[in-house]
Amino acid sequence: MQYYEDVEIGDTNEFGAYEVTGEEIVEFADQYDPQPFHTDEEAASESAFGELVASGWHTASICMRLLVEGALEEQAAMGARGVDELRWRRPVTPGDVLSVRTEVLDKRVSESDPRRGYVDTLLEGRNQNDAVVISWIGLGMIERRDPET
Amino acid sequence: MQYYEDVEIGDTNEFGAYEVTGEEIVEFADQYDPQPFHTDEEAASESAFGELVASGWHTASICMRLLVEGALEEQAAMGARGVDELRWRRPVTPGDVLSVRTEVLDKRVSESDPRRGYVDTLLEGRNQNDAVVISWIGLGMIERRDPET
Repeated sequence: MQYYEDVEIGDTNEFGAYEVTGEEIVEFADQYDPQPFHTDEEAASESAFGELVASGWHTASICMRLLVEGALEEQAAMGARGVDELRWRRPVTPGDVLSVRTEVLDKRVSESDPRRGYVDTLLEGRNQNDAVVISWIGLGMIERRDPET
Repeated sequence: MQYYEDVEIGDTNEFGAYEVTGEEIVEFADQYDPQPFHTDEEAASESAFGELVASGWHTASICMRLLVEGALEEQAAMGARGVDELRWRRPVTPGDVLSVRTEVLDKRVSESDPRRGYVDTLLEGRNQNDAVVISWIGLGMIERRDPET
């Protein structure tokens, strides 16, 4: 198990892959983002995108899945306070295969709770052509191994 | 249909509600955020949260659904470039009923594409006790009615 003390600024990590099907794009969007360019191939072809594209929240959720499996499962993770600078940089379309790269930007101990460490991590989601489709800075929390030190 | 010209800085809007069930919390998290405090009631009771809580991406996606139904369906919306200052302010737990409040913070025409307007909108998701559980600033795009003017 990885604790706050084990995380170093500059640490990088890569994991994936996740294939995004048209069926999953429509299923997610029907439930959570029912805009025509996410739910209807024909309407999407007449939109500014020109084809069916994944909801940005779907793309984020897929990257979260990769992050959990690739990193958080081995960490004493305590959730996240939020995310800064979330950007949808390129459309995600049916058949895309996503992977994730992370880089630790900063870390510090919580001033209000010494059992808790804050770790800021840049996350980039890339497609099969190594093009960045999404990025954000995650404001994560992770347990300290020894809060007394 | 509402275009860029119809949006005014300071405009506010409220819509909802969406009841979040424990079943849906687990279903979303199994697929996209399989951390124990999102997927397993017993593990969650032993976590820092003390009970099952929704994935932050799930909460965001529910608010997106309310935003689409409450506002974007009537707009010439062109998607969003991203989101700033996404914050998960309070846990969302089974039985919570979420609603959304929006406020337009800024608007301007794209310098690279005069058919496109940028609208920055603060979104707050609240629970049945009117407590803010999530907030973000959406960087939306909306068509101009008349790009020539």
